[in-house]
Amino acid sequence: MASKKNNRKQHILEAAAQLFREKGYSATSMRDLAKAVDLKASSLYNHISGKEEILRDICFNNAKRFLEALRQVESGTSNPAGKVRALIRLHIQVATEDITSIMALNDEWRHLSEPHLSEFIAMRKEYELRFKAIIEQGIREGSFKAYDANIALYTIFSAMRWIYDWYRPGRSISIEQLEEEVAGLLLTGLNNNYSFEIS
Amino acid sequence: MASKKNNRKQHILEAAAQLFREKGYSATSMRDLAKAVDLKASSLYNHISGKEEILRDICFNNAKRFLEALRQVESGTSNPAGKVRALIRLHIQVATEDITSIMALNDEWRHLSEPHLSEFIAMRKEYELRFKAIIEQGIREGSFKAYDANIALYTIFSAMRWIYDWYRPGRSISIEQLEEEVAGLLLTGLNNNYSFEIS
Repeated sequence: MASKKNNRKQHILEAAAQLFREKGYSATSMRDLAKAVDLKASSLYNHISGKEEILRDICFNNAKRFLEALRQVESGTSNPAGKVRALIRLHIQVATEDITSIMALNDEWRHLSEPHLSEFIAMRKEYELRFKAIIEQGIREGSFKAYDANIALYTIFSAMRWIYDWYRPGRSISIEQLEEEVAGLLLTGLNNNYSFEIS
Repeated sequence: MASKKNNRKQHILEAAAQLFREKGYSATSMRDLAKAVDLKASSLYNHISGKEEILRDICFNNAKRFLEALRQVESGTSNPAGKVRALIRLHIQVATEDITSIMALNDEWRHLSEPHLSEFIAMRKEYELRFKAIIEQGIREGSFKAYDANIALYTIFSAMRWIYDWYRPGRSISIEQLEEEVAGLLLTGLNNNYSFEIS
């Protein structure tokens, strides 16, 4: 019974994420959402107190998921390149498999109210700093070039955003190919030769 | 006199882009804009017919600028890597020097009305296809790895988006360093060794 309730709730969160993506958070009403999950608005309120609760659930579920995955990567034995690659794979997997993650990774979390907004920003910041520490370790050890770690971090994060706009299951490209090529592009570069001529 | 009028118009477009970035296009009123440029709302209408005209001017000015720069790069003698690098530099320069470009490159252009929306989407699509043709040429010639050209294209485009959120003149990082490192990261990869171990 509890599990059935959880499934229903997850279904509501996914439908909400889909609507927020199409119309934006502000323009989506509880009435739109009730229609999307085939419930009367009054029944929907049995599951969820309102839009803000949905946004909060989605954002914090995803923030916890990313921090937990990061903790596992950090405690593994990979070198920094292997860790960065594992995190790129994680982002792509989540982006392609769970539409609710778009809220946490892109911009809609800005609609959270306080104190949730500050709490969420702190979790995001923690994730960024710990990801950056892995890049800094690679730079220190000489396996990464001496880039500015912020530039490397934000370029990597940002490079994965388009996947939300673009990837749909059934595209000719598999998730595995996407992971392999985006990670390859970011980690070893577009160019076949390590040094290349710009003529 | 014409030039003074153009300067005033450019000033209005820049102030509008700043407001759209902070509040979003939908939430920005002509009253907000008049206040930002220190004009009475009635005087503002002497310069501009309304929000939609501003959005249109900004989007098409930028689309033309990018297509013209692309044309110059295409007709140059650089190899594909040099051309991609030149385009990455162009994106970063525009992103750091002209705040109005954010509208054309990110999402606010979606607020354009027809037929302008379709016209703008066609210009964007043309830019993407011609940029992709350069990547495909590099793949064909063997100077780029045999990635899917769409994955490479969108990863590169997307990787530059964060610069709008993050870069401010006066940051410890210069535009030159930003260009050098983002282009380096995307073109030759994060890793110091072309092949690397993932342990």
